[in-house]
Amino acid sequence: MHATEIWTNVEAIRARNPLVHNITNYVVMNNTANALLALGASPVMAHAEEEMEALADLTRLVGGALVINIGTLSRAWIDAMATAMRAAVARGIPVVLDPVGAGATAYRTQACRDLLAAARPAVIRGNASEIMALWKDGVTTKGVDSAHGTEAAAEAARELASRHACVVCVSGATDFITDGGHEARVHNGVPMMTRVTGLGCTASALTGAFLAVQPSALPAATHAMAVMGICGEVAAERAAGPGTLQTHFLDALYNLDRETIETRLRCS
Amino acid sequence: MHATEIWTNVEAIRARNPLVHNITNYVVMNNTANALLALGASPVMAHAEEEMEALADLTRLVGGALVINIGTLSRAWIDAMATAMRAAVARGIPVVLDPVGAGATAYRTQACRDLLAAARPAVIRGNASEIMALWKDGVTTKGVDSAHGTEAAAEAARELASRHACVVCVSGATDFITDGGHEARVHNGVPMMTRVTGLGCTASALTGAFLAVQPSALPAATHAMAVMGICGEVAAERAAGPGTLQTHFLDALYNLDRETIETRLRCS
Amino acid sequence: MHATEIWTNVEAIRARNPLVHNITNYVVMNNTANALLALGASPVMAHAEEEMEALADLTRLVGGALVINIGTLSRAWIDAMATAMRAAVARGIPVVLDPVGAGATAYRTQACRDLLAAARPAVIRGNASEIMALWKDGVTTKGVDSAHGTEAAAEAARELASRHACVVCVSGATDFITDGGHEARVHNGVPMMTRVTGLGCTASALTGAFLAVQPSALPAATHAMAVMGICGEVAAERAAGPGTLQTHFLDALYNLDRETIETRLRCS
Repeated sequence: MHATEIWTNVEAIRARNPLVHNITNYVVMNNTANALLALGASPVMAHAEEEMEALADLTRLVGGALVINIGTLSRAWIDAMATAMRAAVARGIPVVLDPVGAGATAYRTQACRDLLAAARPAVIRGNASEIMALWKDGVTTKGVDSAHGTEAAAEAARELASRHACVVCVSGATDFITDGGHEARVHNGVPMMTRVTGLGCTASALTGAFLAVQPSALPAATHAMAVMGICGEVAAERAAGPGTLQTHFLDALYNLDRETIETRLRCS
Repeated sequence: MHATEIWTNVEAIRARNPLVHNITNYVVMNNTANALLALGASPVMAHAEEEMEALADLTRLVGGALVINIGTLSRAWIDAMATAMRAAVARGIPVVLDPVGAGATAYRTQACRDLLAAARPAVIRGNASEIMALWKDGVTTKGVDSAHGTEAAAEAARELASRHACVVCVSGATDFITDGGHEARVHNGVPMMTRVTGLGCTASALTGAFLAVQPSALPAATHAMAVMGICGEVAAERAAGPGTLQTHFLDALYNLDRETIETRLRCS
Repeated sequence: MHATEIWTNVEAIRARNPLVHNITNYVVMNNTANALLALGASPVMAHAEEEMEALADLTRLVGGALVINIGTLSRAWIDAMATAMRAAVARGIPVVLDPVGAGATAYRTQACRDLLAAARPAVIRGNASEIMALWKDGVTTKGVDSAHGTEAAAEAARELASRHACVVCVSGATDFITDGGHEARVHNGVPMMTRVTGLGCTASALTGAFLAVQPSALPAATHAMAVMGICGEVAAERAAGPGTLQTHFLDALYNLDRETIETRLRCS
């Protein structure tokens, strides 16, 4: 992966302001919207089943993506998520699925499987435990934080990607992105990012923004993870803890330039 | 408009801590509450239909306002909003309506019209696209971000204000406030404010705080927009991006003094 | 109370990362999760009744607590709260109840009483008005901000603690913690903390984290309030207003060390 491609996509997001429709959890809605705005996208948060078709029409019209995040799920929201995913896929709108807490409860794992049966996402992004839980039963997790390292989930990610003909992105100290055949690893980022809630959810949202300007899902997901990690590093240099990290992270997204990407990018 | 009047109202909010009851969207609840607290008001976020009458009684008792924001609407919330608006108007409590995303979907536009039929707000505050969508059918918008400039919406705002016998506030690079006859424009603010989610929602909430101490809706809405813009400018001088802008904006609201208003106010 | 005990518990939280399951309000979810992460705990926000038993099993397995906060309550959420409380108590998991706005509406007061009838919390934490409203009818409050000082609520707190065989924590300029017999007062903190939304809710969440490593509820609640107040003081020294206070507060939790506790602790 070349820094130039990432920069081209960042510029495209800033020029086109793609509409990213999020059905996401209550915890991170504010930060997700702010991260999308800071990057240059136009976020919409809406979950009423009655307007899912109309929002898909609008997304199709102006260009964008759909991001589904099951964090604070309940029955009515899962129904709206399924409707929104079907409406998006029917219109060729790329979909990102973030299976927050899959494996923590059977209810969550089943909700993800129902959503995957409803429509095919372009990208599934989760931590190692979540990806392993979607891959097969019997994997335990610890709440919404991962109990496993990225490499432990690599085989699970490859098989899950092949099974659903999509890209799977496992975020962690090293991010692993695969379509079942090709794969990429992003080494950017800092450990303190795990002490800010919802940066994984932000990664999923930014993946939606990149998919809106870059139809190929493997580079789109990889570019999103690289931008996350790079901006996390920039923010960490100015931060005294996770509170200021979050604030500086948004500033870093807003100020991201070609040179920063070229200097910091660590992919393989 | 004189800076002195704005300052008098800011002092009144700080002295009386008016209760501002918000039924607002999940994305901005935290920021809205923080902005109201920073200004000196006492925010309450509650949406259960069962307690809307009791909260209206409490608001009437201690003094305050109701702010309705349809951002992440669903059926049950719209019902509670209508109940709360009727309860407020019946008790003489001023109401602000923020029609987030009106025009983006027919569901949203219709929800706003239903709320306007339920009870008359003192102020409707939205961006140009939202105000134009409420004014007449066939206006397109782009998600929750405006696709139109303020001046394009001036005539729509005047007619909408006359139709509903209320004040309409169109926020943008220049804010335009009208009761259908008289009007005001606020030129304060900085472009980076559009890259922080929910500052429009914050403007609606602050309008509620000003209405609680200033019964005349045209100056109340104008003062709120002036304070938003002025504090945005103060914050921008210390901010390195939208993350720190948000943080410094709350500090600026908290530290707002007479001199800052007098020096910076740009109204016409 | 010795600073050493507090520090031992902070170290235990950082070492064990207890799972703190929160069913809390929309306004504070993000800040609550961030505060728990900054302290070293592992927050989960989930409210679907279908997964309450499974989450209780998980909490029991890895160690943790349940925190119930009625801030933006509605019927379905109260039902889930009751189910979660029963599931927790049945497994020996400590429960914290935060009766936000009790007394502001009869609906809220009754919801708290129903929850108290469902299962016994280890700690009830509220402001003076809320604790007095739970204690007996006829106490008025002002929205979610307290209309009474801590000492006015001391007798109410003692009786409420005895009635429910739990610890009651009244937060305010001075925090008062009692089990009906023994009691403690924490004098740390700064007035500006009342201008940041949800720091009371954060106190309840941190109480859950301390309960997870310290089974005795009186010291656990006291330690949580001391850490809140101390970190608030550290943050206030760097803050220019409530916006930066919130950010620096999270940093202070993350950087809290033994010396800071020893130097600043003011208990009686």
